[in-house]
Amino acid sequence: MMKNGVKKIALLTGGGDCPGLNAVIRAVTRTAILKYDVEVIGYKFGYKGLYNNDFMPLTLKTVSGIQHMGGTILYSSNKDNLFDYTVEEDGVEVKKDVSDVAVENMKKENIDVLVVIGGDGTLTSARDFARKGVKVIGVPKTIDNDLASTDVTFGFNSALNVAVDALDRLHTTAASHHRIMLLEVMGRNAGWIGLESGIAGSADVILIPEIPYDINKIVDKVREREEEGKLFSIIVVAEGAKPLGGNVVVNKVVKDSPDPIRLGGIGNKLAYDLEQLIKNHEIRCTVLGHIQRGGMTSTFDRILSTRYGVEAVEMINNNKFGNMVCLTGRKMSYEHLENVIGATKVVNPNGEIVEAAKAIGICFGD
Amino acid sequence: MMKNGVKKIALLTGGGDCPGLNAVIRAVTRTAILKYDVEVIGYKFGYKGLYNNDFMPLTLKTVSGIQHMGGTILYSSNKDNLFDYTVEEDGVEVKKDVSDVAVENMKKENIDVLVVIGGDGTLTSARDFARKGVKVIGVPKTIDNDLASTDVTFGFNSALNVAVDALDRLHTTAASHHRIMLLEVMGRNAGWIGLESGIAGSADVILIPEIPYDINKIVDKVREREEEGKLFSIIVVAEGAKPLGGNVVVNKVVKDSPDPIRLGGIGNKLAYDLEQLIKNHEIRCTVLGHIQRGGMTSTFDRILSTRYGVEAVEMINNNKFGNMVCLTGRKMSYEHLENVIGATKVVNPNGEIVEAAKAIGICFGD
Amino acid sequence: MMKNGVKKIALLTGGGDCPGLNAVIRAVTRTAILKYDVEVIGYKFGYKGLYNNDFMPLTLKTVSGIQHMGGTILYSSNKDNLFDYTVEEDGVEVKKDVSDVAVENMKKENIDVLVVIGGDGTLTSARDFARKGVKVIGVPKTIDNDLASTDVTFGFNSALNVAVDALDRLHTTAASHHRIMLLEVMGRNAGWIGLESGIAGSADVILIPEIPYDINKIVDKVREREEEGKLFSIIVVAEGAKPLGGNVVVNKVVKDSPDPIRLGGIGNKLAYDLEQLIKNHEIRCTVLGHIQRGGMTSTFDRILSTRYGVEAVEMINNNKFGNMVCLTGRKMSYEHLENVIGATKVVNPNGEIVEAAKAIGICFGD
Amino acid sequence: MMKNGVKKIALLTGGGDCPGLNAVIRAVTRTAILKYDVEVIGYKFGYKGLYNNDFMPLTLKTVSGIQHMGGTILYSSNKDNLFDYTVEEDGVEVKKDVSDVAVENMKKENIDVLVVIGGDGTLTSARDFARKGVKVIGVPKTIDNDLASTDVTFGFNSALNVAVDALDRLHTTAASHHRIMLLEVMGRNAGWIGLESGIAGSADVILIPEIPYDINKIVDKVREREEEGKLFSIIVVAEGAKPLGGNVVVNKVVKDSPDPIRLGGIGNKLAYDLEQLIKNHEIRCTVLGHIQRGGMTSTFDRILSTRYGVEAVEMINNNKFGNMVCLTGRKMSYEHLENVIGATKVVNPNGEIVEAAKAIGICFGD
Repeated sequence: MMKNGVKKIALLTGGGDCPGLNAVIRAVTRTAILKYDVEVIGYKFGYKGLYNNDFMPLTLKTVSGIQHMGGTILYSSNKDNLFDYTVEEDGVEVKKDVSDVAVENMKKENIDVLVVIGGDGTLTSARDFARKGVKVIGVPKTIDNDLASTDVTFGFNSALNVAVDALDRLHTTAASHHRIMLLEVMGRNAGWIGLESGIAGSADVILIPEIPYDINKIVDKVREREEEGKLFSIIVVAEGAKPLGGNVVVNKVVKDSPDPIRLGGIGNKLAYDLEQLIKNHEIRCTVLGHIQRGGMTSTFDRILSTRYGVEAVEMINNNKFGNMVCLTGRKMSYEHLENVIGATKVVNPNGEIVEAAKAIGICFGD
Repeated sequence: MMKNGVKKIALLTGGGDCPGLNAVIRAVTRTAILKYDVEVIGYKFGYKGLYNNDFMPLTLKTVSGIQHMGGTILYSSNKDNLFDYTVEEDGVEVKKDVSDVAVENMKKENIDVLVVIGGDGTLTSARDFARKGVKVIGVPKTIDNDLASTDVTFGFNSALNVAVDALDRLHTTAASHHRIMLLEVMGRNAGWIGLESGIAGSADVILIPEIPYDINKIVDKVREREEEGKLFSIIVVAEGAKPLGGNVVVNKVVKDSPDPIRLGGIGNKLAYDLEQLIKNHEIRCTVLGHIQRGGMTSTFDRILSTRYGVEAVEMINNNKFGNMVCLTGRKMSYEHLENVIGATKVVNPNGEIVEAAKAIGICFGD
Repeated sequence: MMKNGVKKIALLTGGGDCPGLNAVIRAVTRTAILKYDVEVIGYKFGYKGLYNNDFMPLTLKTVSGIQHMGGTILYSSNKDNLFDYTVEEDGVEVKKDVSDVAVENMKKENIDVLVVIGGDGTLTSARDFARKGVKVIGVPKTIDNDLASTDVTFGFNSALNVAVDALDRLHTTAASHHRIMLLEVMGRNAGWIGLESGIAGSADVILIPEIPYDINKIVDKVREREEEGKLFSIIVVAEGAKPLGGNVVVNKVVKDSPDPIRLGGIGNKLAYDLEQLIKNHEIRCTVLGHIQRGGMTSTFDRILSTRYGVEAVEMINNNKFGNMVCLTGRKMSYEHLENVIGATKVVNPNGEIVEAAKAIGICFGD
Repeated sequence: MMKNGVKKIALLTGGGDCPGLNAVIRAVTRTAILKYDVEVIGYKFGYKGLYNNDFMPLTLKTVSGIQHMGGTILYSSNKDNLFDYTVEEDGVEVKKDVSDVAVENMKKENIDVLVVIGGDGTLTSARDFARKGVKVIGVPKTIDNDLASTDVTFGFNSALNVAVDALDRLHTTAASHHRIMLLEVMGRNAGWIGLESGIAGSADVILIPEIPYDINKIVDKVREREEEGKLFSIIVVAEGAKPLGGNVVVNKVVKDSPDPIRLGGIGNKLAYDLEQLIKNHEIRCTVLGHIQRGGMTSTFDRILSTRYGVEAVEMINNNKFGNMVCLTGRKMSYEHLENVIGATKVVNPNGEIVEAAKAIGICFGD
């Protein structure tokens, strides 16, 4: 029994999926049921399920055997902002604030508290529901590791592992053929995945959004390695990396060409640009894409997710509504959602980790 | 001591690298030295090293600890046909037959036998050297598994593992977001990687060069799954897959556009085409690319490579020159290089494995 | 529709679990339903479920998402021989032939054919049911790879991967501390796992049941390596390995000691024995045990299991009752259960693979 | 150039090996050479090499390609306390303080600073050398995560991954056979590996040195799961776990028995004890042993090790001698060796992580 009389909580997962969501769902559910005898349901497809009153009961049985699985058994959605929601009225699509429907649905199901697992967008809605008086607890989810307030969150370590595994593989091929291999990894605004996978994957060059690059510096690095007798190079490129004074290159579809197809992003562009400057090596680019998001949850992320899930329930019992659970050092803490939103944690170009990378000789193109 | 007096052999690896090359190099070297007291050297960068007399001694020490490593310690090259080799004469690049230089170099180093590890191209040169009287042994290397004569060769199992790992990852994301996920895998002419990774990775659709696809059949499959309540689909596309009556779409660089960059291949094209026909799912394509070639050699490939390497040396001892080592069932065998060249092993559209895949409901677009 | 009118089949899995069982269950179920519109049920806990009429329907939904999972959703049992079954009568346990109850149960459920997935013990019962007139199809399951008739079966490759992964790990520690590391792997009667994991894991010594060892030969090998400057050694020991003229050492519980606990098997015994003969190295033994059986099914085993499952259903359609599905080279085949039983496939001490291992310098203690 | 004129540093690794040592060696070497133009050598076998003046130069080349490899290229030793060292004098082994020889050797080689990578024992010697006036920097290494002063150190995450992988494997077998599976993991004094692998591996029971267990509580947990329909249980046992009022059970060799062999530790003892109390499940124990130490270094540990290595060199440049590098939250820091020694970080039985584990229903036997 909770001391504040909470009897039923609802969970939802929003935004892009990442490893650890299921571990949070499991930990919230088990803690609520086993420790506090509180009932749990899960809305499906994020806030969409809240709007459509589409939910599933979460029991010991439904969360059994899911801790290690990537993805989310509650499904997720990317376009589910109920404060600016697309609905059809008289056959026309219009944008409306339908958050009252959500509040009504929670009342109907006697939901005392809503636990929201998501990133900046999803948590913005959580804050907006909190402003409306809904008792909300946030759990941070960002595979890019770009949420401020928390030291790190789940999904990031799992994604790093995929990127580093790819870099390990590219090394053997690059070395055998004396190639320059580019790997494009996630990170539109924050370069954490690029930075840390590059260090762990023994990359020679790391390009991230926070440090615009000069292509000549990359060529210099390749030449410097040649002089040391290393006839291959590994370059990690975050998808949001950009040349000095240049723009981000995004994947896009060229529709008006005779054979309209998707174009590649910065990785492929940089490979092309480098080919104009470096003639004595083959240059190849691999775009990791969605395989960074999926698969088994790493050990690190399973533990962190479990701790987040348990702490979210403890926060309910301690009336810490309107807050998001955080990791600070080795301890759980929390931060008010009002302070969490919009505070992106980007890589500090002069910070400890970039400096460490530079100390061991990694080039950032600056 | 070998009964035919062979005292020194040379090794080279040609064509694209794949896991298992180092295991073959190690097995040849150890068997030659430990069992027959024969000296071994390795030419670097395939036939290029043979032309430039660029080699390294292969000793117990140089091959120590390499069995599990992808790539090749001898390096490899893609453009090294000495029978039609590009050389500069008077400042102009011309094509010439320089194979006599190679023969001369081998004589100079007292090489009795040349062991060539490579695919169709590399083995064609091996045959041509055999025709010139060089004692040659071939070891089959094809990550695509498209060499006839041998049941299977190394690299293929390792590449499959990478593709299946990616499919496992894509599943969790696809299921969480109700997406259609495409994975483009290797296989320009032969669809073995697509076929077997698709089966092992629980794909819903497999598209391979041997079976041109009708895009409407793919749409039908997606719809059929929706009716079963499965709101996501996984599609494996070999890079050489093509629509019925259509052409292969290859990666290419559009050079005359204002921002010239590489275009994607069939995977991205098909994603685009499907988006025109399927509006209720997000569609995403991942191109696995070079990470299929690299990394640690799989258990299966380590054993097979070791057996190939040992057998290659036994064949030398038994005067089986001009032949390529093969696996037939569970046994080592061999086949004359004259019969090996040009005999591509493609997937039989009505064969046992395709039929098995269809029996469990996999769609091939036909 | 099947041409012979079969409308309903039952599946069961018997004996120790291994990766691939679920993939067979899935393939049988999907092929039966999708290709032939045949109903499928699964008895739980092997023949025990058949005796207790304890079963579950197998539908597209129940077999969804299980292909890659180790274990068996039908559960398994080790003591379920219905021809010599332990039942309680008047409070006393007696052994009885209760196979008629099983036949009766199948009739009651209108089972036309029983598909039995198991090893030698489980298949012996399958043969005995065939002799009683039950329509039976066998699918070979032996993690030890010791069933004759089929080239290889599922579970073996997955188990090898676990053993090789352990050997890769032991290498780094052994090399850093100049230790002799023993790894005890499965293989009571047949040394396939020891043999192939030892080759793939770069072991220096491999000890298997088929080749009794002389401990002095092992000491010689360690000394020989020292002379080459290699101050560590890796030894793979199959659990059924034994010294020349000695007996198999099995794990056992010493019950009459003051603190009765399990004793280690051959690995620990050999470590102890070697310590008496080798003083200048630390010697450590690791017993892999049950982790060899579990986890994700390997790519190779997923494909093989799927082919077995599909073929089992095709054999039903073609009236091949009383047979077991086999792999011969690259093709599916079958063999009559009467010929399968009792024909153990052990390692040939003079066979190709042992000879290859010896050629690269691996010591077998003989 | 360093501002304090340091021109040459020496490195050594002591105690049991763990993943990350090579990454530290690489980072120290590269930073020293590339950023500060400082020379680096490495003593072999820990302090033994310092005593014997047995070292190797560490160059960009010697540390190339080692970041991901477990073990240590400098080798390690467990009995190398030079302040109480075993030497032979007149044919008799005596214990002596030979630290002056070490100091002399460093002078001879013009070593300005000694970087010591090791655990409590190795760092105690480092402190003792600091007391003698040697300029020392410590880098924490403890696979058990039991060094105070630093939040976490390398090796721990890699070891956790191995244990969790084993638990994932045991789950499928346990579930298929309704078994109780025990996994004995490292942790003689501190139960971190047991605690965190148990959480991540979905264990039902976790037994650690810090929380003596009542075997009846374990039996209760198994019974409780049976009532929920879960007919298997997974138990993680740290090697230092012990019953309430009982003693630690260590692996030992019974020498005076007719067939003297090693006995198992607490895992096997507990399996035996449980078998007396639980008759309706098979009970199996696996002892992970040395495979926890080896293999590839995890992504997390590669990054941490690299940061430690770089920071160690920065500390040299900043005259922070006598200190050990630490991780505090997300930042590098340091602590004086005098404060580090002997301060073991054990699991707090009432701490956040144990409480979280209990909240999701994990039993600690208390």
